[in-house]
Amino acid sequence: MAEEALFQFLHHELVQYIYKTSENGDVENGRNITKLENLGFRVGQGLIERLTKDTARFKDELDVMKFICKDFWTCVFKKQIDNLRTNHQGIYVLQDNKFRLLSQLSAGKQYLDLAPKYLAFTCGLVRGGLSNLGVKSIVTAEVSVMPACKFQVMIQKM
Amino acid sequence: MAEEALFQFLHHELVQYIYKTSENGDVENGRNITKLENLGFRVGQGLIERLTKDTARFKDELDVMKFICKDFWTCVFKKQIDNLRTNHQGIYVLQDNKFRLLSQLSAGKQYLDLAPKYLAFTCGLVRGGLSNLGVKSIVTAEVSVMPACKFQVMIQKM
Repeated sequence: MAEEALFQFLHHELVQYIYKTSENGDVENGRNITKLENLGFRVGQGLIERLTKDTARFKDELDVMKFICKDFWTCVFKKQIDNLRTNHQGIYVLQDNKFRLLSQLSAGKQYLDLAPKYLAFTCGLVRGGLSNLGVKSIVTAEVSVMPACKFQVMIQKM
Repeated sequence: MAEEALFQFLHHELVQYIYKTSENGDVENGRNITKLENLGFRVGQGLIERLTKDTARFKDELDVMKFICKDFWTCVFKKQIDNLRTNHQGIYVLQDNKFRLLSQLSAGKQYLDLAPKYLAFTCGLVRGGLSNLGVKSIVTAEVSVMPACKFQVMIQKM
């Protein structure tokens, strides 16, 4: 419980720090999202190396995605992804019904605008993890009802 | 193992980010140390609240320090402080013989100069934790042989 909190607090401070040190405005907001995404990317790269140190080789792309939904997600958020869907053409949707980094925000609609800055790091995290498993992707996130969250992964064929 | 890594990677990226976005020079280095310390302070404040949610009231200052050395340290670094000393006049020295945030640096003397930026966050963490337990302090850190590290806590009588 408290160990999970360490990550949550640190993530929160990171978001605050990046936003505090930047100017206001939409352009700047976009830049901050990118910064958080890049930070998450590098953490994801490191983390997946540790996690897959002793795992068997993955069979295919779906196998990789399942690993992200189970082991990777559990390591970071102490729970698995609740639902994984795919169109079998390189698009995957990972749904977390109680996304930890949003669970401290009020669940009403009035804070929906604030959600993206709490999702960028995790988008990067997933992209970084996939990247080090040889899967190039674009990861975006979407919230309709807090604290549920959908991450969409679009695999980039190389 | 991998969960610990999450914190280590995130901490590392945070340090890199703060240093990357600032200019060079000694003044700026001091400012970065302060930023990291303040960030740690707020994380420590949050964390200690979670950790002490169900604990009994502390008997005295030493009791508080023991909690920091055991429960708090274990939560963050997955190990206890190896040695706690005090002069019984408000100075405590917490020694960690294998401090996690330094263990990825080469143990030679050539990187000793780099140590302070990897210690500032933790100094703040301890200060924040103590602060929310009603103990005002100044926390500094010192490394003589990596990855061993001593944190000195000077209690500020109010």
